[in-house]
Amino acid sequence: MVGRLYRLPETASYGEPEVLMGSFAVKGDLIWTPEPGRFESLADGYITVEDGRIAAVSPRRPDLPVDDYSGRLIIPGLSDLHLHAPQYVFMGLYMDEELLQWLERHTFPIEAAFRDEGFAREAYQVFSDDLLRTPTTRISAFGTIFADTTLLLMDILDKAGFSGYVGKVNMDRNSPDILREATEESVSETLRFIEEGSRFASVRPIITPRFIPSCSDRLLSELGRIAADYGLPIQSHLDENLSEIEWVASLCPDSASYADAYDSFSLLTERTIMAHCVWLGDDEVRLMKERGAFVAHSPSSNINIASGIAPVRRYLDEGLKVGLATDVAGGSSLSLLRMVSDAVQSSKVHWRIADGSLEPLSLSEAFYLASKGGGSFFGKVGSFEAGYDADIAVIARDADRASRLLQPGIEERLESVIYRSAEMPVEAKYIRGRKVRGSGS
Amino acid sequence: MVGRLYRLPETASYGEPEVLMGSFAVKGDLIWTPEPGRFESLADGYITVEDGRIAAVSPRRPDLPVDDYSGRLIIPGLSDLHLHAPQYVFMGLYMDEELLQWLERHTFPIEAAFRDEGFAREAYQVFSDDLLRTPTTRISAFGTIFADTTLLLMDILDKAGFSGYVGKVNMDRNSPDILREATEESVSETLRFIEEGSRFASVRPIITPRFIPSCSDRLLSELGRIAADYGLPIQSHLDENLSEIEWVASLCPDSASYADAYDSFSLLTERTIMAHCVWLGDDEVRLMKERGAFVAHSPSSNINIASGIAPVRRYLDEGLKVGLATDVAGGSSLSLLRMVSDAVQSSKVHWRIADGSLEPLSLSEAFYLASKGGGSFFGKVGSFEAGYDADIAVIARDADRASRLLQPGIEERLESVIYRSAEMPVEAKYIRGRKVRGSGS
Repeated sequence: MVGRLYRLPETASYGEPEVLMGSFAVKGDLIWTPEPGRFESLADGYITVEDGRIAAVSPRRPDLPVDDYSGRLIIPGLSDLHLHAPQYVFMGLYMDEELLQWLERHTFPIEAAFRDEGFAREAYQVFSDDLLRTPTTRISAFGTIFADTTLLLMDILDKAGFSGYVGKVNMDRNSPDILREATEESVSETLRFIEEGSRFASVRPIITPRFIPSCSDRLLSELGRIAADYGLPIQSHLDENLSEIEWVASLCPDSASYADAYDSFSLLTERTIMAHCVWLGDDEVRLMKERGAFVAHSPSSNINIASGIAPVRRYLDEGLKVGLATDVAGGSSLSLLRMVSDAVQSSKVHWRIADGSLEPLSLSEAFYLASKGGGSFFGKVGSFEAGYDADIAVIARDADRASRLLQPGIEERLESVIYRSAEMPVEAKYIRGRKVRGSGS
Repeated sequence: MVGRLYRLPETASYGEPEVLMGSFAVKGDLIWTPEPGRFESLADGYITVEDGRIAAVSPRRPDLPVDDYSGRLIIPGLSDLHLHAPQYVFMGLYMDEELLQWLERHTFPIEAAFRDEGFAREAYQVFSDDLLRTPTTRISAFGTIFADTTLLLMDILDKAGFSGYVGKVNMDRNSPDILREATEESVSETLRFIEEGSRFASVRPIITPRFIPSCSDRLLSELGRIAADYGLPIQSHLDENLSEIEWVASLCPDSASYADAYDSFSLLTERTIMAHCVWLGDDEVRLMKERGAFVAHSPSSNINIASGIAPVRRYLDEGLKVGLATDVAGGSSLSLLRMVSDAVQSSKVHWRIADGSLEPLSLSEAFYLASKGGGSFFGKVGSFEAGYDADIAVIARDADRASRLLQPGIEERLESVIYRSAEMPVEAKYIRGRKVRGSGS
């Protein structure tokens, strides 16, 4: 066992999530999935919100102030279990390559630009503004290796009212110089990130080793220990691409599997999100289930980067925890609603041409994954049942805004036009009962 | 050979497509695919239009009036080789079923409503209005069995300035009573449809047997003869779904294949579009190539109805003519730009999990299919090369409009919200040099 690179602080203090005290109601056409198999809905229904939580859903108007969205569809806030905030600036671009090439040629050079505060501030603000217009209320996001601009991302998301986790990425090997940290630096910057990142009300730090290939054993073991000592959640990538998996096998000769490698460093816990899991082996499925780790299913990304299709039906049958993720920018949409249809479509293709024994996902099952399924990583989130956090999205059918920060060329702009199907904007949005968008009437 | 059910008229007269005489130029950031492998582009370029055709593309301003779209992306008008106009009213709904069930339960009952002129007029107007906001300039569309409302569809599309083909659907067996015609009636109504449909300037009749299961041998043989006598193009469905293919085999014991069945009735010609072709056998590929028939690749529909993924790379390698199609409403988007990304994504999945020997489509290849590839069915359409019809689409990034005609329930509305990713609207559009949308400046 390597020696500890840090001392545990006397007290690890965290702010408490802001909660809107008081009561009010939201009116509209309500729909949610209490369980995967079925939708529940109520036309002209009232959601009573008390102290940031859902108290009741009723057809009768409560004696409270009402935000009236009559005629509009109202769904639970959705949870995005995996995305890369800095990659939003090139979402929909560079889609003709596979993972490792795509990282080398495009992703790493652009993430390097986030060392610059000015660029990062502008890019993250646009990301936050556009995310605010989607039904997403909870996220688990990657920043970059740069602690300061990742803290800036947390500040922007927190001010916008989002709730969830943001991670300073760790990379100390097999990375370009500008994105490669010394192991000690990576650990100390992570500790500083945790300390400074604990000041935000609703956005919290999460331990974020990029993936096995870019983290040394020593770094991974330190990160596992930090997560345990500070009681922090963990996010990383697992079994996304076949070449990546071969590479990991050669990097971890002593591990039984890719998942086992993470587990040997105590990085596989019930508060861990593993993105993708396209190619989990039987032993890995068992291990993920034993540890209670979450699978972040990213159907758009898995197809765009030609990784494959995750057998979600099997994971659900085996009792794994599964949520949906946009995986911006491997994924080409910021909209979890788009991910719902992508998940259904992917499962149909898998059923038809890969494994006819795995029934396609129904629409309600896929919607459940985007709402209550992924939401359970954040607590009681993603349903309109009493006691759930009041995460509420009112769907509108108006425009989405395009953003451009890279002055892309004409071909890139065309590619962007092709891949960026408009996100479904929301007219209003509440997170823990706090209105973060819209006026109501 | 059965006896002829009709007499060939003395003269089969057709209107000539309206062409805008005179010259002008369109300015903007131009991009097109002269060949599948590469994009060609010109920033701040000028397209010179003479008498409805493209005369030149140049970086220098010609001495002509200019419609100035500086800063906007300008692409060739796109060609949609297969869609069902009446199904637009439920696009994005009923996506949890396979083809035959989906036809029985939803498609046929709703198509039956198009016997009513008032409903048809409203539905087709919304379809035309929304189609006008996409980059699509040419279409080959199915109407219903009802000749009068299908003529109404032609009238609406013609007035809107679209160019292409609309077919009165033929069905005389294996269909619900309200959609089943007597063979003689089907033939005589088709002849009336051809006569009355010949009055439109830019939208022409096309022979449209729905598919083998819903057309008797006698009807198919009459339709093949009508197509030959009137020199009309043909559209139908081929090898979409495995159950459908088994059914056809049992219906046509004497045919070597599904394609051979059409061919035996002279319905497979160089002016024939066969939608889907997901499961073409080797002999069918050869036959399609010998006849010079077009494949209408509908990636969105083929996945939504779980039909499979057409091996487009193979068809291209074998020299088949291929274009893209939305196949509304099996397809869940009216946007051919969405079909471009869907075609790329489908080809990646097929390469990864079905046949690693078939390379995925590149973006330019897929865009070529939507523009010049499918456009070749209509003439010199889909490129900015000199001599091509001046079909030009100026891309804007504003809202798309939702339309609702079925007063869907809340679940259906949610499903629609999920599946209907916004079409990419156009700020302006020209068809054969005629501005059909937008003002310019």
